[in-house]
Amino acid sequence: MYNPQLNKHGELNHLLTIEGLPAAHIRQILDRAQQYVTMAEQDSKKVPLLSGRSVFNLFFENSTRTRTTFEIAAKRLSADVISLNINASSTAKGETLLDTIHNLEAMGADMFVVRHAESGAPFLIARHVKPGVHVVNAGDGRHAHPTQALLDMFTIRHYKGDFTQLRVAIVGDILHSRVARSQIHALTTLGVPEVRVIGPKTLLPTGVEKLGVRVFHDLREGLRDVDVVIMLRLQNERMNGALLPSAQEFFKHYGLTQEKLALAKPDAIVMHPGPMNRGVEIDSPVADGAHSVILPQVTFGIAVRMAVMGILAGKQ
Amino acid sequence: MYNPQLNKHGELNHLLTIEGLPAAHIRQILDRAQQYVTMAEQDSKKVPLLSGRSVFNLFFENSTRTRTTFEIAAKRLSADVISLNINASSTAKGETLLDTIHNLEAMGADMFVVRHAESGAPFLIARHVKPGVHVVNAGDGRHAHPTQALLDMFTIRHYKGDFTQLRVAIVGDILHSRVARSQIHALTTLGVPEVRVIGPKTLLPTGVEKLGVRVFHDLREGLRDVDVVIMLRLQNERMNGALLPSAQEFFKHYGLTQEKLALAKPDAIVMHPGPMNRGVEIDSPVADGAHSVILPQVTFGIAVRMAVMGILAGKQ
Amino acid sequence: MYNPQLNKHGELNHLLTIEGLPAAHIRQILDRAQQYVTMAEQDSKKVPLLSGRSVFNLFFENSTRTRTTFEIAAKRLSADVISLNINASSTAKGETLLDTIHNLEAMGADMFVVRHAESGAPFLIARHVKPGVHVVNAGDGRHAHPTQALLDMFTIRHYKGDFTQLRVAIVGDILHSRVARSQIHALTTLGVPEVRVIGPKTLLPTGVEKLGVRVFHDLREGLRDVDVVIMLRLQNERMNGALLPSAQEFFKHYGLTQEKLALAKPDAIVMHPGPMNRGVEIDSPVADGAHSVILPQVTFGIAVRMAVMGILAGKQ
Repeated sequence: MYNPQLNKHGELNHLLTIEGLPAAHIRQILDRAQQYVTMAEQDSKKVPLLSGRSVFNLFFENSTRTRTTFEIAAKRLSADVISLNINASSTAKGETLLDTIHNLEAMGADMFVVRHAESGAPFLIARHVKPGVHVVNAGDGRHAHPTQALLDMFTIRHYKGDFTQLRVAIVGDILHSRVARSQIHALTTLGVPEVRVIGPKTLLPTGVEKLGVRVFHDLREGLRDVDVVIMLRLQNERMNGALLPSAQEFFKHYGLTQEKLALAKPDAIVMHPGPMNRGVEIDSPVADGAHSVILPQVTFGIAVRMAVMGILAGKQ
Repeated sequence: MYNPQLNKHGELNHLLTIEGLPAAHIRQILDRAQQYVTMAEQDSKKVPLLSGRSVFNLFFENSTRTRTTFEIAAKRLSADVISLNINASSTAKGETLLDTIHNLEAMGADMFVVRHAESGAPFLIARHVKPGVHVVNAGDGRHAHPTQALLDMFTIRHYKGDFTQLRVAIVGDILHSRVARSQIHALTTLGVPEVRVIGPKTLLPTGVEKLGVRVFHDLREGLRDVDVVIMLRLQNERMNGALLPSAQEFFKHYGLTQEKLALAKPDAIVMHPGPMNRGVEIDSPVADGAHSVILPQVTFGIAVRMAVMGILAGKQ
Repeated sequence: MYNPQLNKHGELNHLLTIEGLPAAHIRQILDRAQQYVTMAEQDSKKVPLLSGRSVFNLFFENSTRTRTTFEIAAKRLSADVISLNINASSTAKGETLLDTIHNLEAMGADMFVVRHAESGAPFLIARHVKPGVHVVNAGDGRHAHPTQALLDMFTIRHYKGDFTQLRVAIVGDILHSRVARSQIHALTTLGVPEVRVIGPKTLLPTGVEKLGVRVFHDLREGLRDVDVVIMLRLQNERMNGALLPSAQEFFKHYGLTQEKLALAKPDAIVMHPGPMNRGVEIDSPVADGAHSVILPQVTFGIAVRMAVMGILAGKQ
C-alpha cells in the first residue's frame, strides 16, 4: 500500500499522520525520544544532529505553544529555525500556498513543520517538496496531530510499559479533535486491546466505532477500570455553541473530578494535551493530583519532536 | 531575614528586586559585568557560559527595547532564547499564569525573564518554579526594574568610582516609576550619602522620604551641586492626564536644559533609561551633550544583563 | 566622487544603492556569492564568518519574505540575528529614528539591514553610525533595492555568462519600482548594451530614457529578441487605482504569456522578484515553465545576501 510518509525503502520521510504508520516506526521514534529524555536528565540538552540544517515552522493557524515546542526541539538539535506566522505575510499578498513552499525550499529549507486549519494541507505540501525536504504535520484541521499522539504514546509507555494489557479512555469532544483521531490510531496500532471514547452524542463522530473503539456516553461508566484517562481540551468556541449547553453543564457531565477518577484503576494516569480549561473538562485537584502526568507529557513532547526531526533530517 | 531571591547558601537564585539585595551581591554583578564590557571591547562579545541552556523571555507587557537587550545578552552567553509576547497566546486561551509557567518549565526552561504589568508577578513565578530554574524581573508594574537600576549603578561606578561621596538626583515622575524605586534602593544600599528626588507633588509618592531621599519640587534647587542627574521617562499616557497640565508645561518646570544642568557639578553626568522624550523631560543639547552618558548606559546594560544571567544560570 | 557606501580605501562599507557602485564591487559580490552557492550544493550551508557578530534586521516596512532571506543569510554566516518590526515599538513611543539606531548600536550592533518606506532612510542611518557598523539597504521607498538587483545579476550571469552581449527587458510598473531602478543601474554598470523598459505610460517615470534604457509601450514589440525578461510585481494597491483600469486589463496588455514569450530569443530566461501575482503580470505556464528561473533567483538571493554581509562585516 502506498504510504505518502515513507520513502521507497520504507523509511520515514515525512510525518503526516498516525493512520497507516507501522508500529515499528512508532517504536523507533519512541526509542529515539527515550535517548533524548535520558540525555536531558543528565544535563546535556543539546545535540549537533541538525547543525547547519534549516527548519521552517509554518504556522498558518496560530499556536504559540506547539510552535514553541517545535522551536525548542529544533534548537536542541542545533538547527537554524525560522518561525513564520503566515497570515499577514505572503499569502496576504496573493501568493499561493505552493508558491510560498517552493520559495522557502529555494531558500534552502530542509524541513517544514506545518500547522494549518485545513485538513490535508501538510499532505499537499509533502507531495510537492523536492527529495531531501521533510514535512512534519503539527496539526491540520480536524484531521491529525501525529506528534501529540506520539508524545502521548511515549507517556503511556513510560508509565505503563506494555500497551497490550491496557484499557484507555479518551474523554470529551472527539468530533472536532485531531488529537483524538491520532491517539486512536496510535493506540490501536500499538496493540491496546480496549480503547474507549467518552462524550455526548453531539461531540462524537458518527461511525466512530469503525476506528476500533468502544463508545460511552456516561463518564462514570466509561472510566470504570481504565488504566489511562486522556482528557481532551474543550475548544472555547464550542462552549457556547449549538452542540453544548454551557461549560458548567459540560463539567457536570464530562468534567473529570477526583470522585469520578476513583472509578478507574487505582494506578490510572490522567493525561491532557493542554492548555487545560480548569473547571471545564478537568477539575483542578485532578489536574494537579497524584495521577496527573500532564506536565511530564510536555517534557516528553520536546524529546518526541526532537526524535521525529532527528530521524527525518539527521545526518547519516 | 528571608530573601526570596537568595538560596539557602545566600547566593543569588533569582533577581527580583533591589530592595533587600545585599551590597555584596550588587558588587558581584557589577564586577562580572565589567569583565564582559572589557571582553566586548576586545572584539569577543560571545561566551559559552549558557550554552545548552534555554532562556524564556516572557513579556506579558510589550517592550521591544528591554526584550531585545535580554535577547542579545542571552545570545552572547550562547543560550537558546525563546521570546514570547504573551497576550494572544495561552492566557488568551484561558490558561492561568502558573499553568503557562509550569508548561514552559516542563519544556526545559532554565530561566524566565519576566516583564509584567502587575507588581509582584515575577515573585509569584519565582515562588513556584522548581529548583534550578531562575527568574529575572524585567520590570513589574510600578514595583521594580532591578536590571535597569544595576546598569545605572554600573554607569555611575564607571564614571564616578566611589559611591560614598556622591550626590545623586532622580528627576521626574517618581510616582509611577519602577525604575526610580529600584534606583533609590540601589543607591542607598551602595552607600550614596545623598539621594534627591525632584518632581511635582502630583508625581511623587507620599512618604517617599522614608526611602532615605531628600525631596525637591524645584528642579534648579534640586540640581545644585549634584554629581549625577538621572532623568526619568515621562510616560505618554501621563502627559495629558489629570496629574500634569501638558508636556510643554512639564518641560518648562522639569525638563533638563543646559542652563539648568549648569547648576550641577561641572563634571556631573546625565543619565536616562530611554527611550527619551526629547523636549519633554530632556532637551536635545543635553541628551547629546558632553555630560550625557545615556548611550554608554545601553552598552553597559547588555553586560549587566549578561552578568545577572551568567551568575544565575552559568555552569560551575 | 564621494560615494557614501565606500570607505576611504574604496572598499565596500555599506550597501545602499547600485547607482554609482563600481562594476568591480558588483563582481566581487557575485564571485563571493558563487562560493556560497557551490558550498551549499555540497551540503555545508554554514560558515563561521560572522560568528559573534550581531546583525539587526530593522524592518520599518513589513516584508516577511525579504526579512526571512536576510535572517537565513545571517544565520548561515553564524551571526546572532535580531529582527525588529519597528512600528509598534520605540518609534511609537516617540523615539526618533536616529535615537533607535544609536541605541541599537550601543547594544553592540555590527550591521543594520534596513527596510524603510521612505527613500533615503538607509543613507541617513549610514551617515550616522560609527566606524565598524555597516548598513545594508533592504529596500527604501521607491528608491533602491540593491540586494535584489545583485541577485538578479547573479542569476543572469549564471545563465548567460557574458553581460556585454545581452538584450534585457524589464516589464511592468517601472514607476513605483525600486527593484527596476536598481536593476537598470546594475545592468548598465555591467555593460549590458541594450536595456529595455516596457510598460504603460502611466507606469513609466518621465525621462526614464536618461537612465540609458529604451522605452517600449507594447509588450510584443519590446520582447522581440531579448535574452532576459524581468517581470515586475504589480503592487496590489495599484491595481484598482487611477493609473490602471484593472488587473484583467493589465494582464491582457502586459501579462507575460507563453505566446508573447515566444517573441524573445529561444533560450530567453524569465525572472520575477516575487511574490508573483499569477494571472496579473505573469501567466502560470510561464511562471512554472522551462524558461523560468524564478526559484533559482531565490536560492541565489540567499548566497548574494551572505556575500554582501560577509564582505561588509566578515573578520579579516
